[in-house]
Order: sequence, then structure tokens, then C-alpha cells
Amino acid sequence: MIIVMKQGAKEASIKKVLGIIETTGLQTHLSIGQEVTIIGVIGDKSKLTNCNIELFDDVEKIVHLTESYKLANRKFHPEMSSVKVGNHIIGPDTLTIMAGPCAIESEQQLIDTAHAVKRAGAQILRGGAYKPRTSPYAFQGLEEDGLRYMKSVREETGLAVVCEVTSLIAIEAAVNYVDMLQIGARNMQNFYLLKEAGKSGLPVLLKRGLSATIDEWLNAAEYIIAEGNPNVILCERGIRTFETATRNTLDISAVPAIKEKSHLPIIIDPSHATGVRNYVAPLAKAGIAAGADGLMIEVHPDPSKALSDGPQSLNFAQFDKLVNDLKPYISLESRTL
Amino acid sequence: MIIVMKQGAKEASIKKVLGIIETTGLQTHLSIGQEVTIIGVIGDKSKLTNCNIELFDDVEKIVHLTESYKLANRKFHPEMSSVKVGNHIIGPDTLTIMAGPCAIESEQQLIDTAHAVKRAGAQILRGGAYKPRTSPYAFQGLEEDGLRYMKSVREETGLAVVCEVTSLIAIEAAVNYVDMLQIGARNMQNFYLLKEAGKSGLPVLLKRGLSATIDEWLNAAEYIIAEGNPNVILCERGIRTFETATRNTLDISAVPAIKEKSHLPIIIDPSHATGVRNYVAPLAKAGIAAGADGLMIEVHPDPSKALSDGPQSLNFAQFDKLVNDLKPYISLESRTL
Amino acid sequence: MIIVMKQGAKEASIKKVLGIIETTGLQTHLSIGQEVTIIGVIGDKSKLTNCNIELFDDVEKIVHLTESYKLANRKFHPEMSSVKVGNHIIGPDTLTIMAGPCAIESEQQLIDTAHAVKRAGAQILRGGAYKPRTSPYAFQGLEEDGLRYMKSVREETGLAVVCEVTSLIAIEAAVNYVDMLQIGARNMQNFYLLKEAGKSGLPVLLKRGLSATIDEWLNAAEYIIAEGNPNVILCERGIRTFETATRNTLDISAVPAIKEKSHLPIIIDPSHATGVRNYVAPLAKAGIAAGADGLMIEVHPDPSKALSDGPQSLNFAQFDKLVNDLKPYISLESRTL
Amino acid sequence: MIIVMKQGAKEASIKKVLGIIETTGLQTHLSIGQEVTIIGVIGDKSKLTNCNIELFDDVEKIVHLTESYKLANRKFHPEMSSVKVGNHIIGPDTLTIMAGPCAIESEQQLIDTAHAVKRAGAQILRGGAYKPRTSPYAFQGLEEDGLRYMKSVREETGLAVVCEVTSLIAIEAAVNYVDMLQIGARNMQNFYLLKEAGKSGLPVLLKRGLSATIDEWLNAAEYIIAEGNPNVILCERGIRTFETATRNTLDISAVPAIKEKSHLPIIIDPSHATGVRNYVAPLAKAGIAAGADGLMIEVHPDPSKALSDGPQSLNFAQFDKLVNDLKPYISLESRTL
Repeated sequence: MIIVMKQGAKEASIKKVLGIIETTGLQTHLSIGQEVTIIGVIGDKSKLTNCNIELFDDVEKIVHLTESYKLANRKFHPEMSSVKVGNHIIGPDTLTIMAGPCAIESEQQLIDTAHAVKRAGAQILRGGAYKPRTSPYAFQGLEEDGLRYMKSVREETGLAVVCEVTSLIAIEAAVNYVDMLQIGARNMQNFYLLKEAGKSGLPVLLKRGLSATIDEWLNAAEYIIAEGNPNVILCERGIRTFETATRNTLDISAVPAIKEKSHLPIIIDPSHATGVRNYVAPLAKAGIAAGADGLMIEVHPDPSKALSDGPQSLNFAQFDKLVNDLKPYISLESRTL
Repeated sequence: MIIVMKQGAKEASIKKVLGIIETTGLQTHLSIGQEVTIIGVIGDKSKLTNCNIELFDDVEKIVHLTESYKLANRKFHPEMSSVKVGNHIIGPDTLTIMAGPCAIESEQQLIDTAHAVKRAGAQILRGGAYKPRTSPYAFQGLEEDGLRYMKSVREETGLAVVCEVTSLIAIEAAVNYVDMLQIGARNMQNFYLLKEAGKSGLPVLLKRGLSATIDEWLNAAEYIIAEGNPNVILCERGIRTFETATRNTLDISAVPAIKEKSHLPIIIDPSHATGVRNYVAPLAKAGIAAGADGLMIEVHPDPSKALSDGPQSLNFAQFDKLVNDLKPYISLESRTL
Repeated sequence: MIIVMKQGAKEASIKKVLGIIETTGLQTHLSIGQEVTIIGVIGDKSKLTNCNIELFDDVEKIVHLTESYKLANRKFHPEMSSVKVGNHIIGPDTLTIMAGPCAIESEQQLIDTAHAVKRAGAQILRGGAYKPRTSPYAFQGLEEDGLRYMKSVREETGLAVVCEVTSLIAIEAAVNYVDMLQIGARNMQNFYLLKEAGKSGLPVLLKRGLSATIDEWLNAAEYIIAEGNPNVILCERGIRTFETATRNTLDISAVPAIKEKSHLPIIIDPSHATGVRNYVAPLAKAGIAAGADGLMIEVHPDPSKALSDGPQSLNFAQFDKLVNDLKPYISLESRTL
Repeated sequence: MIIVMKQGAKEASIKKVLGIIETTGLQTHLSIGQEVTIIGVIGDKSKLTNCNIELFDDVEKIVHLTESYKLANRKFHPEMSSVKVGNHIIGPDTLTIMAGPCAIESEQQLIDTAHAVKRAGAQILRGGAYKPRTSPYAFQGLEEDGLRYMKSVREETGLAVVCEVTSLIAIEAAVNYVDMLQIGARNMQNFYLLKEAGKSGLPVLLKRGLSATIDEWLNAAEYIIAEGNPNVILCERGIRTFETATRNTLDISAVPAIKEKSHLPIIIDPSHATGVRNYVAPLAKAGIAAGADGLMIEVHPDPSKALSDGPQSLNFAQFDKLVNDLKPYISLESRTL
């Protein structure tokens, strides 16, 4: 942490800053330049939490040099992590495909989809029981009934299952039925929900917020891990930009950036990122080629009848073809499906 | 709602779309152009929720012509609304100033601040008891103790009080202590929380999400109103853009835009929008001049010791000067403090 | 300038960085912390231009502590500048209104508008002779004929006149006819054009680029001033964000931010910022209240017949009313029209 | 094109709009709904350029249903285009690699780089002679000397060569030395430059502007093609977003989106998109997998001594390894290097 003093800072101001830092037991390093004077702070900066040093006289700004997240930080955990979901391992050696409908609509829809995606090669079934929708008048999900269908499908097919949770009530229900909780983009900074997901004991799939920086995203993961739950998987699903040709802008660079900054697995969701069915296949390939540990793909028995996000869903034949087309890319990355 | 067919759409495809719409009882209007053929749909488009018409053969896209929010929409409620908070009315004739610390730190801090902001002219005390913080290691708030201090300060000073809520537990506690609930930017699309705030019966101050469009913001308000609670106040607090000279970018145009699209009151929060103390006064003036119904300003007895957001807080003397400087602008808008 | 070394940087790497810097004659300050080791560099960092220190072994990143613009920087020029345009002074004591059509369409249109805006209180006539248009099939301007009309209107009315220039040819023509050159948003980083505008000797109105940071904007001003032309006026005209309710997002915070970082005058353009006629008046008031030195407003004899940007233009009566409504706000800021 | 009338639009207003359109010879289709009345316009909408219909009484908005670009539009040119640069063909069957230094620094640097990239497999040499730099104090390029080196390297190696042009003077010089002109991101809406590049007769590599939509980008291409020059290649090089972990955000979805909307080839530039050397390889792979027709990669003999953009440049060994690693991905796409 560096304190940058204003040009022409008075000696008294500099002394006051040095003094307040040293009273906390931290060491300082003063460097007086031609244009700027800086004070380096050595030691655990959390001791300075209660001193708003940027408000002291003649202080121009504070520059932080280290990340506030620690448990999610690769600097302190260089080896890449793997996360077990049901019997399946997500991590550096595997390529995980999670597939299923945006919203669970009926037991039949779910079971048909589960069989189809398993046959094609997916290892995890996704499906929404609690749907966050922009308008209160749109379909909001089957809630606990949906979770129940998830559990019976899991038993029938052996697929691991993941469901989005949007409240403590949903978490309390979901732990009885699913293998992994999903925190959606709109709740990425719902810190209360992050803590409760951390306490649940289940692995957590943490989607990136629409306008969350990578730093904020890893801090959100930190909330979960800090509850004693290291089993976090990140999911890049597009960020909000000025471009309207796609629903969101898939930040493909987040894959190598996350790999550098964190040890957590990262998957991408090309369906939500683009909102356009024809762009799912090229972006799925691109995600694998960029080094992602997996994909989340929307699949629906009949997308033209889907209650949520039909336009970006694949039907069974399209999904089957997609997985086949992906296989050589997965081999190139020395991963197994 | 308009369905735009692809160039060279086959007659059979057009007939299929017309057919599916007419079976729902809606009327259609076909218009065949040189470059493009369109189908207008007349009537309540919610009947089409389950048909993903964009997936039919030869359909290029759907263009929606009406907003999905109704109760928050000025088209159906042309008169501007007023909202009563405690004994204070927020609306077109008044200029409401909500002031107080970002985080409640102690009873003494709160009571000192309350007296100071009341003396200066504020009508509502703000203060955070549940703090959403990017890092799990930052101060998270005093929770119910903070709420208790709020209530005793309200009794002592007669100020109305508002507190942010971040979970159902927080709402259940807050209804016993405060006059208005605040939904923060990070929870603007926490639809579960919106519904619970709607059910609480208390007025709700709804901050705009960091990357929420005005349309999404009014849909979030719709969630609250749809629970039978029309007492929603909007708060513009800066949106996320590429600019880093300020913490966020205050979208001042949202003030006239909201006045045109909705009947709900709108206030601005220049403290959070900029994160820079010196910019609070010019933006507060600008907000009033643009037609805002009020302001939310951070005030702290000693900003250099604040546990949260010190850099943007005003001390008592600065706040006193600010309100004095604002008075002629308030008069120009024919409002009363 | 600070060099942050990677965690666990080898002593040899640190020595190599220290060595390369010291060979340039600059001084260094080494500070070894628990998590991070940093090297402060004292002196004129331009001596390091050719050493990409971020590529040296074990270097994590470089943090720049001073701005690259000097002539536009208030740190080295604390007093606010005034710029003379024709006989009119733009600066801290005046409130300048530039008004006129988006595009010059005919001599009659221009002369009628000039008389109307002068009568209402504007001091400078704007009008586009070279129009940058998204589509090549839209009206591109009258070019030199438009400039000629500008000159004759200037002679008839005594108003100062400003025109956008989009090429060296346009600059070479414009210097014969107008009092100030305008560089538009799309050309803010057309550095060739900036240099030529700098050499022209005329004052330059520099609009902010659609996605330019304040730092980049001031560096663009630096290009002009570095040619020996200190007469630069900045114009905030809205930045590009995700919001679509307005054409751009007026960054009102840029007004106090520019006042802090630079001595150059700044005006705002609410017409281009919003693209919506009804929002021009509230934002014009807001701009004055935030401390802007002036406004640029589109005015057209009959906006419904304008060849460019009609929807945001005011007619003569609307402009007359606007200026009248602005007068008390101008007085509050102790400025004169 | 559709005209949406305001709720409760008066019959007289509707008639006036219908009348003005019909006087231009266009046909109209009136559709009166419960909430909204719309008027469809059939025929060549350019006839309406001079009527700002959005300003007529009771008109709410205009919805455009067709793109304003025609020559760049795949709707009118379904077959994918190929562009010949020197003796090399860029298009659907090939994978083109353009490589070289950000800035040309000396003849030796250029010739060494040319031999190295040719040996590795690149077909086109890139190198900047006119450098657009944020600060006027940064290295601005060797200008015509740089072009001369390009020509002699082309003769020696047989590589095709491309250079950025930033002014008419640069174009007039470049046509004597290079095989393709590059228009940089900052000049994407420098319409004057686009027209001159169109007139030059050389193929044009058109980089996407930092905040340009895909629609604006294709309109910029239209400016070039409208001058009779169909040889345009698009280059996605990252857009500006809120994320700061990378210099820009590579919009990988632009690849399938451009393929759908246009017949022009598209390449990606992972070096400028990220500004981080370690992210170049994963994004290059991702670009190929997403369907791009080529890549632009920065290569420098000694990146730590580069005068421009060293941090993102590869050295010869790194580039050699990159091309080798890319080969299986190129084969998977049935393209040849």
C-alpha cells in the first residue's frame, strides 16, 4: 500500500501521516520525489481499516498493491483446485459440460432432457427452479416442485444436478435435492446469500455479475470460501457493455485472467452470454480453446415452447451435434469429457 | 409488438406465425414490404408468453413497443406520486434531504449526526446497519443494534429514518425500528428481497443497480408495487462505466427520463455516485436543477475515522454549508425544504 | 512511478531493475514488504520510455503516480484560464451560450437562426459545414459553402462563430471564415487533426470522445497546446454506456473533475448528450449548477425539417424560453451571460 | 420502418403523419392497437430523410427494421468474400497471420522480425510507421522512413505488408510502399480518412473503434466500399468496458455476429485486446475456434526494448511456439495457413 501525497505537501502533513501509521505498529518508507512524495506502508494493512488516510491533509490518493481476496488468490495457493460435484470432478484435467433447460417446466421435460444430455456426453444437469426475471409478470419457476424433479432425475440418470438459489429459503430447500448450488449474476454481490451458500456445505457455482470486475468476482468467491467452503466454481456468462448485437458480451479474456489470479475452476456459459442460438457453438469452441474447465449450455426439448430463454436454447439434436463437434477441441486441450 | 420476418420469408412460414397468434385470440396486421415483411400483433401480448415466436422459421426478430412495467408507468398514472415517510412527504412540491453516516458505528455517532443534520435542514436520517461490502474482511455493520440506535434517535429528534436491508431477516428486524427500507444497488435485482420489501408495508427507497437500465429499474419497482405497496422512491447513485476519475458515473439524465416514464419520486445520491467529497456540492446543485425530488448525502462527525466510505462523507460544518448553498436552488424550483 | 515486484522476486531480478534505472541517472527507493517489494523511481520518468520495465523478470506491474499531460494540468497552472473567441471571453466569470443548427442547410436558415439566438442571449453561433455521419448515405454538410455563410452571418450579426473541422482541408478552409474550430467526439484521438488544429492559431473547442477517459481527453488537449496554442475549451457531450433511454450519458461529474485537474474552461452539450429535446432544459440547468463555463445548444428554425439531429433541436421560441429560464441559475453562479 | 404513435394519439396527428409519408410516394400500413397505434412504411425509406417524423405531434418513436449499410450487408451478398493482399488471399478457406512490431523502429528491427515471422508461418508483416499515441510526448513513429523499410522488407522476404495510416498525407505516402492500409480504432469514424482509404485502391484493414457497435463498424466499412473499393477486412481488437484486468475486452462474439451480418472477412487482434502477453496464446486459439479468418499478433525482437506496446509483444521464440500450437486448431477449422 502506497500513500501518494499532494504536490507541495507540507512537512507537517507528511509527519502526521507517518505518525498515524507508525502508531499501528506498521513500518513506513518515505520517498521524496521531484513531482510527488510517496509513503510506502509495510505490513498487514488491515490495521489501517479505521484510519481513512485519504482524508488527511495533503494526501492525494492511496494505491493498493495487493488484492483483498486471499483464499481465492493463486498467489497463496499456486496449484489449481478441483471440485467434486456428485461423483464428477471439475478441474484442470476434465472438461465438464452442464446442460439442461433454463427453467424446469415439468418432470417430463426434465427427464427427457436429462436422458438426452447424458447420452450426448454432459455430466451435470442444470435447470432453474427459482427464476430471477426482469418483469414480475414473467414465469418465476416451479420452486420446490422443480427441486423434487431434479432429485428424481438424478436418481434415475446418475447425473449430478445444479440449481440456482435466490434466497435462504431456496438454499434450505435445495440442499435436500441437488449436488451444487448456483448463485446467479444478479445475486453475485448479495453477500448475505453468498455467506449462506458458503455455510450450506455444497459446492457453489458462482456466476459473474453483469458489471462485476474480476476483482469483485474473486472477492465474492472469498465470501463463500471464508465460510469454510472451498468448493467454488466460477462461471463467466457475459458482461454488460454498449453492444446490443448480443445480449451480453462474453469476456473470453476472463478465462486466462482467472487462471492467472486464482486457483478456482472457471467455466463459460455461451447461451446466456449471447442470447443467440447460432453463436453458442462457436463460443463453446472458443471457451475450450481459451482454457475453460467447462461449459454451461441451455438445452430444451422444444425451444419454441420454452417458458424462459427459448431463443438461446438448443434442441436435443443440436446439442448432440455440438458435443460431437467439441470433442476434438477437448482432446487438443488434453482434457477428458 | 411487431414480428419482423426474414428477407425472402416463405409464405408458409408467414402463415404459420399468423396462425399461432390468431389461435390465442389476438389480432394480427400483415404488412409486406420490399425489404421486410412485418406482422403487427394487437391485444394483450402476455397471451404469447409461452410461444417463442422468434424461433419460428423465417422470423428475424421481435420488436416490443410497450413497456413491461405497468404500475410504475406514467402512461397509466399521469399524476406525479408523493410518498409519506414518517411525517414527511416526498414528492413534487418538496425537496427532501436524507443525510447521515454510511455505516452506523455507535449510538453516540448516530445521535450527534442526527442533531447536526436536522439543524442544517435534513428531514430524514440515513445510516447503514447491514453493509454490503466488496470484501468479506471489511466492516459489515452493527445489524440489529444499529437499528435500535436508529429508533431511539428517531424518538429523540423527530427525524424519519431509513436503513438498507439485505435479507429477509434484516427486513423482519427493520420494520420494528425504521420508517423506510432501502434496497441497495447490489440488490436491485434480488427479486426475492423486492417482493419481501413490498410485503413489509413500509415505503421503499430503491437504488439503481450499477449496470441497470432505466427499464430494468422500473421493472424492479414494479415488483414492489405489485405486492400492493405503491410507496416506492427511486434513487440514482451512479452507474458503472469505463471512467475511473469518479467511483461511478452519475446519470443525471435519469432524472428527466424517470419523470417522463414514471410517476414515482426520484432522488440522487452524489456521495456514492462520485466517491469524492469535493464533487458532492456541485452534483447536489445539479441534481436539484435537473428536477430531482431530493438528495441523499453522507455525513459523518469525523470522516477521517469513518468505518465505511469516509472519503466521500461531509463533516457537520461542510454539510451545514452545503444545505445553505442549496437553498436558493431549491427556491428556484418552487420547492420547499 | 512505482515498480511492483512479484511475490518472491529473486534478489538478482531486483538488482537488475535497480541497475537499469540508475544507469539513466534516475534515483530509486527500494522498499521490501511482507507481501510485496516495490521500487520507487524519482526524477523525470520520460528517461525510461525505451525500457519496458514491466517485461523484466519478476516485475508484476508499474504504477504511474503523475499525469502524462503537463500544459493542460492545473498542478502546473493553478489559475483558471480564459479563452477569447472573437470578442467574447469564455472563462470563470462568464457563462457562454453557443447555439445554432446541427448542420448548416442554407444561408437563410443560418441567418434566421443567428438573429434568433443572438436576440435570446447567445454569444456564439454554432453550425456544422462538415458533418461526420454514421452512414455514408446521410447528409454530409455543405462544406466550404457553409463556412462562407458563417462568415457573412458573423459580419451581419457580430456573433462569434464556431465550426467543426474533420480534415486538414477543412481546417485550411475554416481559418478564413470562423473564430473557433471544433474537434468532434469521433476525432478526439485523431492526433494528426489535433496537431493541425493546434497550428491553426484559432481557439479550439475539443469535444470528449464517446469512450474517452478524462485523462485521455486532457492528453488530447495537450496535443493542441503543445503546438503553442493554449486556447482550448473542453466540451462534455455524453459518453457511451449501456443505457439506451438517452443517446449518450451526460457525465456531469466531468465538470468538477475537470475543474480540479485542469485550468481549461469546460462547457456541456445537453443536446448531443441526450438526443431528446425535452431533456435539454433540465440538463442545461444542471450543467450551470455544476459549474460549467458554458453550454452548446442545438437550435433550428423548424426542427421537423432539419437535415441532421432534428429530434434534439429547439425551435426559436423554445430556445428563447430556455435562456430566460437559465438566467437565475447563471446569476446564482455569479456569472454574466 | 415503423412509426409508433403515442398512447391516445389524436386522429388528426395520425392523418398528418400518413399524409406526409404518402406525399413522398411511399405506402403506409396503419395498425390501431389497444395500447399503441403503429404506422408501417413500405418502400425506400431514404425518401423520408428530410422529414423528422419523430418530431410530429403524437409520434412516440421510430423503429428501423433494416440496416443502413447495404454493400457490406450479407443479406444482399450471401457468399463470403475473399480479399487479395499482395499474393495472399484472406477469406473462408485460409487462416491469415499478420505479425510484426507495434512500431517500426529501424530497418534492422523490421527485417529481423520479417524473417522470423515468415519462418514461423505468418503471411503478412505488420508494423506501424504513424503511431497514434495517447500522449504527445510518446514515440510517434518513423513515418515515411518506416514505410520505406516496409517496402524493402517486402522485396526481400516476399511477405505482404500492412501499415496504419492516420491522415491523407500518410495514405498518399503509403500507397507507394505497402499492400494494405490499416485504419486504426481511434480513426474508425474518421469518415474523411475512410473515404480517402476507399479511393486509394488498396485493400483496407478496418479496426473496430473502442466503443463502436457492430452496426457502426459495418457502416464504417460501407464508407470504404461506397468509394468503389470492396476489399475491406474487419479486425476486432477489443472494446472498452469497465473491466481493468485487461486493457480492453475482446468481443469474441463479434466473430459469429459479423459472419451472420456481413460477407467481409474478420480477424482478431489478441495483442491489443488484452495488453498482456500471457493472454495472447489462449485468445488466439479462441479466435480461430470461433471462426475468425485470421489473427494479428505483435512480435518484436526484444519486447523489453520496444518503443511502443512492449508488454503485449511476443519475441521470436514465443511467436514460433504460438504458430505451432495454433496449427491443430487451424486444421480443425479446415483452413490452411
